[in-house]
Amino acid sequence: MPRPRLEFWYEFASTYSYLSAMRIEALAEAAGVAVRWRPFLIGPVFAAQGWTSSPFNLFPAKGRNMWRDVERQAAAYGLPPLTQPDPFPQNSLSATRVAILGADEPWLVPFTKAVFSASFAQGRSIAEPSAVAAILDGLDLDGPQLLKAASAEANKTRLRVAGEEARSRGLYGAPSFLTDDGELFWGNDRLEQALSWAAGDRPGSLR
Amino acid sequence: MPRPRLEFWYEFASTYSYLSAMRIEALAEAAGVAVRWRPFLIGPVFAAQGWTSSPFNLFPAKGRNMWRDVERQAAAYGLPPLTQPDPFPQNSLSATRVAILGADEPWLVPFTKAVFSASFAQGRSIAEPSAVAAILDGLDLDGPQLLKAASAEANKTRLRVAGEEARSRGLYGAPSFLTDDGELFWGNDRLEQALSWAAGDRPGSLR
Repeated sequence: MPRPRLEFWYEFASTYSYLSAMRIEALAEAAGVAVRWRPFLIGPVFAAQGWTSSPFNLFPAKGRNMWRDVERQAAAYGLPPLTQPDPFPQNSLSATRVAILGADEPWLVPFTKAVFSASFAQGRSIAEPSAVAAILDGLDLDGPQLLKAASAEANKTRLRVAGEEARSRGLYGAPSFLTDDGELFWGNDRLEQALSWAAGDRPGSLR
Repeated sequence: MPRPRLEFWYEFASTYSYLSAMRIEALAEAAGVAVRWRPFLIGPVFAAQGWTSSPFNLFPAKGRNMWRDVERQAAAYGLPPLTQPDPFPQNSLSATRVAILGADEPWLVPFTKAVFSASFAQGRSIAEPSAVAAILDGLDLDGPQLLKAASAEANKTRLRVAGEEARSRGLYGAPSFLTDDGELFWGNDRLEQALSWAAGDRPGSLR
C-alpha cells in the first residue's frame, strides 16, 4: 500500500513556513506520511485581497507579537535563536524560482531548509540572486547554472501555475497543508493535525 | 504563595474565544493558574486597523477554512458539533456589557460559557437584549434587572476603558492571554503555552 501523502505549501519569506520546514521531516516520518514540498509565492495571494505587504507589517501590533511568538516557538522546538530578516519580508522570487525548478530533484528539501536557515537563523539575506547562488554552492550544486535555468520562461510559467493552483485550492496563507482528499490546514500550528488527517486519523467523528 | 495568574481576554462573537472559554478552566486547574476572565469588544480594535467586519468575512478563503478548522478543533476537544451563528459575527454589545457588569461576580464564568454555548453549540442568537436576558434567566439571575444595570453610563464607561486597556497592552485579536509580566499570547492555539508561561515554565532559555 502506498504511504499516505501530504502537500506542504511554503513561502520562503514566511516565518511560520520556516518553523514547519524545520519540523516536518521528523513528524512526517513518525506519522508514516510522505510529504510533497510545494514552494510558492504568497505575495500575489495577499495582493488579490488588497494587501500590499505582509499583514505583519500592515498591522503593527500583530507584527510585534508575531516576532515574539516565533521566538518563543523556535525556543520550544529547540531551533536556533531567531534572526529577524532586514528588510522583512525578504524578496523570495529568486529562491522560489529555484525551488520550483527543483520540484522533483533530491536537492529541493536541503535547499529549502538552507534558505530558511539563512534567513531566520543566520541573519543572511536571501533576496539577491547572488545570495541564492551562494546557498546552492554551499550544497555542492552549480549556483549560476541553476539560477539561469530558473529564470527561463518555462520555469517562470511553472511558478505562476503553482500560484494559480494555490488560489484555486483555497490557500490564503503560508504554510498550508493539503491532503489528497482536499482537506486544507493553515499554519504551522496545524502541522501535526494535518499529518494525522493524512494518515487517516480524523478528530472525533468528522469526515 | 499566591497562585500565578493569567488574564483571558475574549470576545463573544469570536469562534476561537469560544474554544478557549470551554477549555480554560480544566487546563488552568491542571497548571495551578488562576484565570481572570476579561470580556471586551474586538470590533473597535478591528475598526482601528481599517476592517469594517470580521476578517473571516472580509477574506472569504480565510473565512471558509476558519469554519472548517473550528469544526475540526471542536471535534478534537470533544465539544458539541459547531453551529454557525447567522449572521456572523453576532452583535455582542449587550452580552459584553453584562459580562463587564459581572466582572467581579461569581456568575461571570457561567454566564460567559452559556453565551458562547448558545451561539456556537445551540445555534441561538445572542444579539438581542432579550436573548441575553433569557440566558441570564436560565442561570437563575434577574435578566431584565442586570440588562438595565449593564446599560448604565458607568458600566458603558467600564467597557470603553477595557477596550482602551486592550489596545494599550498590545491586543489585536481574540482570544488573547496576558501574564502578570506582560507576555502576550494570541489565539486559542496558545492557551496551553500561556498557562505554562504564567506558571513559570519558559520555552528554552527565554525570559
